[in-house]
Amino acid sequence: MAIRIFITGGTFDKEYNERDGKLYFKDTHLPEMLALGRCKLEVAPRTLMMVDSLEMTDADRQIVVEQCTRAKEEHILITHGTDTMEVTAQVLGKAIHNKTIVLTGAMIPYKFGSSDGLFNLGSAMAFVQVLPQGVYIAMNGKCFTWDNVKKNRKTGEFEALSNVRR
Amino acid sequence: MAIRIFITGGTFDKEYNERDGKLYFKDTHLPEMLALGRCKLEVAPRTLMMVDSLEMTDADRQIVVEQCTRAKEEHILITHGTDTMEVTAQVLGKAIHNKTIVLTGAMIPYKFGSSDGLFNLGSAMAFVQVLPQGVYIAMNGKCFTWDNVKKNRKTGEFEALSNVRR
Amino acid sequence: MAIRIFITGGTFDKEYNERDGKLYFKDTHLPEMLALGRCKLEVAPRTLMMVDSLEMTDADRQIVVEQCTRAKEEHILITHGTDTMEVTAQVLGKAIHNKTIVLTGAMIPYKFGSSDGLFNLGSAMAFVQVLPQGVYIAMNGKCFTWDNVKKNRKTGEFEALSNVRR
Amino acid sequence: MAIRIFITGGTFDKEYNERDGKLYFKDTHLPEMLALGRCKLEVAPRTLMMVDSLEMTDADRQIVVEQCTRAKEEHILITHGTDTMEVTAQVLGKAIHNKTIVLTGAMIPYKFGSSDGLFNLGSAMAFVQVLPQGVYIAMNGKCFTWDNVKKNRKTGEFEALSNVRR
Repeated sequence: MAIRIFITGGTFDKEYNERDGKLYFKDTHLPEMLALGRCKLEVAPRTLMMVDSLEMTDADRQIVVEQCTRAKEEHILITHGTDTMEVTAQVLGKAIHNKTIVLTGAMIPYKFGSSDGLFNLGSAMAFVQVLPQGVYIAMNGKCFTWDNVKKNRKTGEFEALSNVRR
Repeated sequence: MAIRIFITGGTFDKEYNERDGKLYFKDTHLPEMLALGRCKLEVAPRTLMMVDSLEMTDADRQIVVEQCTRAKEEHILITHGTDTMEVTAQVLGKAIHNKTIVLTGAMIPYKFGSSDGLFNLGSAMAFVQVLPQGVYIAMNGKCFTWDNVKKNRKTGEFEALSNVRR
Repeated sequence: MAIRIFITGGTFDKEYNERDGKLYFKDTHLPEMLALGRCKLEVAPRTLMMVDSLEMTDADRQIVVEQCTRAKEEHILITHGTDTMEVTAQVLGKAIHNKTIVLTGAMIPYKFGSSDGLFNLGSAMAFVQVLPQGVYIAMNGKCFTWDNVKKNRKTGEFEALSNVRR
Repeated sequence: MAIRIFITGGTFDKEYNERDGKLYFKDTHLPEMLALGRCKLEVAPRTLMMVDSLEMTDADRQIVVEQCTRAKEEHILITHGTDTMEVTAQVLGKAIHNKTIVLTGAMIPYKFGSSDGLFNLGSAMAFVQVLPQGVYIAMNGKCFTWDNVKKNRKTGEFEALSNVRR
């Protein structure tokens, strides 16, 4: 089973620029992370964009939809910033029904040593292999369907809609 | 959904003793790893033993079987050394049929910085939630049923029996 | 020999805020770094401020001068952002002559895993013990007197004035 | 000022073999550590041997003496296992008087993430530049002359002879 991986940026791939002290995107760390995890699945990674998800536009989301639609693989993992992950999941969930698509991300950049990214990537790679067709978000060890998930801005945690503390 | 976690030791939890330069077991790092992964699942961890899996005896394996049998949770994750993980999986697979049990481990100790452990833990936590009742090994991003898996001693990789290079 | 340590902030102590994705100061990591280095010197650390050195004011520098003047210890190490480290060194160099004062810092935050901070701290702790009275900057394994050092903005490297590529 | 670096092995350079779970030596991590520390000193590293210092023989120590004698550099840093570091320092101290030689090491391997190695290397690189001719051990942020130092086996700490708790 081949798994298509689409990379869109997000905290996952942010780095620290020692010249100006700012965070920026260079290359994705996904292949490095899969190597660290000794992942032996057949994967086909492709970088679609490298953006902070707060700056992701409708046009950007259409690119993601289009790429998922065109992909010949039936299992697709997408790395994405957490701030608007639920928005992209909704756009995908309404548009695509014949594939298993899992979005995941990180609260701390992979390069910063104390990242949750490797754990999330491991869980997302597992969910994408076994879940039925549909669009999901894998965060905090959990998996949510696209139409029942929200990031709790206070805790930074993803929750089912019915559980969100308002 | 509550997930029972049984800890048996293995490379996962090995540490370096700076007094004598030897590897040893102190406490499990599992709670620390789940915290790093910002895992928000309801878990109930319990250390059954702290052994190198090459030294795990039949009696040790009976303790694991017994604890899995008694556990009220239907989803059980077991951390285990990789050298005899397949043996314990077979013992469990023959004895228990009404629960989802996933064994996982690591090639590099968690404390050594470059461990595959967090990735494996993420994937195992995902598999244990969604797979049907049965006994599985989750390693290298993949999941194998207990009766179709073997560690390839040359590559250190887990493989389905039909794929093992002999 | 007791060594007084004054902490002023800088990249050394920056952390990543996972709520808003910004860098910020919380507490100093100096005691943690000294513990990691198994440093057994008698030290007396005190946080004077927690600022980005680009935002350090003349008034802030007067606080540093005053604290160094008042300190009963003759050996003082100061952690400082690299962007204006040479400015603070000059102010100190002109004001204080009866103590050994060494400023050091980092290009990458300590918490980001790939920091030069621990190496710099080790060298600064050594220089401050053995150099004659005066004010110095310890960076890149080297040590410079306060009146003969400049940060090369292109390379991020500290250099003697005569060597600076202009 | 060029600094000659001689590498002899020790905990510094130990690695974990994920095939058999044993510690072993592959290549030195010294260049990687100097790069991480953004060290810009002119250095000439050379690996003399890769041994656990408990297994270092008199013949091995003669190689170290000979190499230090022949080296054209006047400043020499030696990485060494901590268990017999004081023995090699004594051999060197009796044989060589016209150079500044500093031995250093680590309690935890560099590759294990929580090593004291980078701190020790930073301090040793500083001491070797500024101390008068002689043979020294740099550990725990301190520096000892070859004839007044002993590793305390209980605490793992290096101490002046007069301070050793017997």
